[in-house]
Amino acid sequence: MAHPVSPLAPKTYPELPTIRGVRFATAEAGIKYKNRTDVLLVGFDEGTAVAGVLTRSKCSSAAVDWCRAHLPSGTARALVVNSGNANAFTGMKGRKSVERTAELAASALGCKPDEVFLASTGVIGEPLDANKFEGVLEDMASRFTEAPWMEPARAIMTTDTFPKLAEAEVDLDGQVVKIAGIAKGSGMIAPDMATMLSFVFTDAPISAKALQALLTRHVATSFNAVTVDSDTSTSDTLLAFATGKADGIEPIESLDDPRAESFGAALHDVLFDLALQVVRDGEGATKQVAITVDGAVDDASAARIAKSIANSPLVKTAIAGEDANWGRVVMAVGKAGEPADRDLLAIRFGDLLVAEKGERAAGYDEAATSAYMKNQELTLGVSLHLGNGEATVYTCDLTHGYITINGDYRS
Amino acid sequence: MAHPVSPLAPKTYPELPTIRGVRFATAEAGIKYKNRTDVLLVGFDEGTAVAGVLTRSKCSSAAVDWCRAHLPSGTARALVVNSGNANAFTGMKGRKSVERTAELAASALGCKPDEVFLASTGVIGEPLDANKFEGVLEDMASRFTEAPWMEPARAIMTTDTFPKLAEAEVDLDGQVVKIAGIAKGSGMIAPDMATMLSFVFTDAPISAKALQALLTRHVATSFNAVTVDSDTSTSDTLLAFATGKADGIEPIESLDDPRAESFGAALHDVLFDLALQVVRDGEGATKQVAITVDGAVDDASAARIAKSIANSPLVKTAIAGEDANWGRVVMAVGKAGEPADRDLLAIRFGDLLVAEKGERAAGYDEAATSAYMKNQELTLGVSLHLGNGEATVYTCDLTHGYITINGDYRS
Repeated sequence: MAHPVSPLAPKTYPELPTIRGVRFATAEAGIKYKNRTDVLLVGFDEGTAVAGVLTRSKCSSAAVDWCRAHLPSGTARALVVNSGNANAFTGMKGRKSVERTAELAASALGCKPDEVFLASTGVIGEPLDANKFEGVLEDMASRFTEAPWMEPARAIMTTDTFPKLAEAEVDLDGQVVKIAGIAKGSGMIAPDMATMLSFVFTDAPISAKALQALLTRHVATSFNAVTVDSDTSTSDTLLAFATGKADGIEPIESLDDPRAESFGAALHDVLFDLALQVVRDGEGATKQVAITVDGAVDDASAARIAKSIANSPLVKTAIAGEDANWGRVVMAVGKAGEPADRDLLAIRFGDLLVAEKGERAAGYDEAATSAYMKNQELTLGVSLHLGNGEATVYTCDLTHGYITINGDYRS
Repeated sequence: MAHPVSPLAPKTYPELPTIRGVRFATAEAGIKYKNRTDVLLVGFDEGTAVAGVLTRSKCSSAAVDWCRAHLPSGTARALVVNSGNANAFTGMKGRKSVERTAELAASALGCKPDEVFLASTGVIGEPLDANKFEGVLEDMASRFTEAPWMEPARAIMTTDTFPKLAEAEVDLDGQVVKIAGIAKGSGMIAPDMATMLSFVFTDAPISAKALQALLTRHVATSFNAVTVDSDTSTSDTLLAFATGKADGIEPIESLDDPRAESFGAALHDVLFDLALQVVRDGEGATKQVAITVDGAVDDASAARIAKSIANSPLVKTAIAGEDANWGRVVMAVGKAGEPADRDLLAIRFGDLLVAEKGERAAGYDEAATSAYMKNQELTLGVSLHLGNGEATVYTCDLTHGYITINGDYRS
């Protein structure tokens, strides 16, 4: 079932660069969807480093378990992603399905199954028949290409209404290093310690250990700072692959290398861009909302308060209705369970001060605030005046579209 | 703005008994609503004990602050409740408004302001003009009555689509003691340590200390076991008043008195009945859902997992769509942050086993499960097989009605 494209979809899509050492193909394996691609196979040259961040759900999918087991090796030769079936809560069948998929990909590419990374997204609890990949993966390997990236971005979509792509370039040792990233995600989005499906590719020469450290650092302010509906997925997976094929650059072995900082900044740009696209394609979303909390006792407390606001159905429906109902923001601060002093609290919608010191601001202007709420991109600011902790969380509104999409997704 | 009456509204309303020592009146003070009662004044005979449980929101309303300050005295002569304005986040104005209201009520009834208890419900952040009560409370006191209870139940409603009443009788020393309770609540319902507005009246002779102990015990499995939308209010207030006017009964001074057990059971029946009515009037609700978790490491862990399921928008929209999407229950267990072993998990919809040992149940019957989902009252059971902890939480589904009601409530 197709849903209308999000009004927050990008007007144009970036043309991602080819990444030396990375080739891919997509195919229709008929896993759930008809007449659209639902499998992505990516091949990597030898020597590719891999790092990843995975869901901490207690009910993680079979593919997540596989990645968790194989990430410590730090090397990858292939990535297989299927949409339409999450292969989550599928027990021994799920584990066997994952093993079989890795074997088929390894055979198609001439590598070891342990060097194949996997991700699945779609319905939970439905066994995934890996035999559907038989022949398909081999055929895909025979028609590998380096572009365009639009194809892989489309093949991993489920309820997404637009493909998600981002890129960055960074200068290391006078040479240009490229980063290309894709993501999918629209509902069941509240990455608590990881993310939805996202894959980032770079030709930078960087060790798996350094890549992992950068990924872990920058996921906190990108994917872990977004929420659509507070529902953390069983399948959240962010993998980064570095082929090291950029010419004339000494490898980055650790974060002590000063170049790790600039590479990390570029990596962050890509992760943040993709995470924001996930929010902008939030199921039923019509508005993007940045929620900034400052003056908390520490950053973690600020983040929990920001998430409490971002996940409040009453705040989200008020935003959908373009109602400057800042009383609901007060409620969400109050219920967060974090230190807060009502009588010090200030709240801003955009630059408009609506409340301070525990009551409506003296200069509160209902007309101006209501006019501000008509914007497609909104900022809510909360100042606690308790300490120096701050955090920003990104979310979307809660509309009839969300109910329509999720009242009949599986059936 | 009137919303359609909940399809889960009771077919008939109980006729609550008169409670000796309790008289009341309602009035239209024009606080927000037009052409409907929005103030309730209740007067108590001397010697009435009071106990209460209040929201633990960090942004509690001025009325909640007032009650918290005066509950330790344990005695009450009056209760004033207004709907339409929560008098929350109204700063010094809110405190003055509360003081003024208590003074006006005390003057009307010839008691001390400290003996007046207060509750307000409605929009947050709007100053409440207590002068609107001037004359009104005096007039109300002049026309006090003992019945019918339907009037007070209606006067405290906001987005409620039906009034909420419950009663119980219990035999103490061969005499009948009566309990009458009313409540309001429909949205912003996730009482974490307290409840929405609810008031319970009894003629039982019981000390404030014993009444408080029973109230605290029984709120855990009644009001604290329901959630509509995960949004804990700034104004949650449960107050119980015991006039002691029942004849020929020795007072219950502490829980060591064996009669406290039977009185407590009757009190629980009233609290549970009212709490369930709040869920059944959940904004936009079309189904009532009981979520039972057993086999958790302890009861608190079971309750947190049950709340995680009950508050998941994806679980709630699936129920609205009558979709037996148990994969979303798996997701909500996984995200709860509590001990759980995916491969031991079993899930039941009603008596139908849908998943066990980490995968779809062998005898899973999609047609039977889909047919079950068409019921108006559903039970979801999750067995963790880790320990003896168990809990049940009650919620409703998430529908277009919730979005409609909350997208334009304040405007």
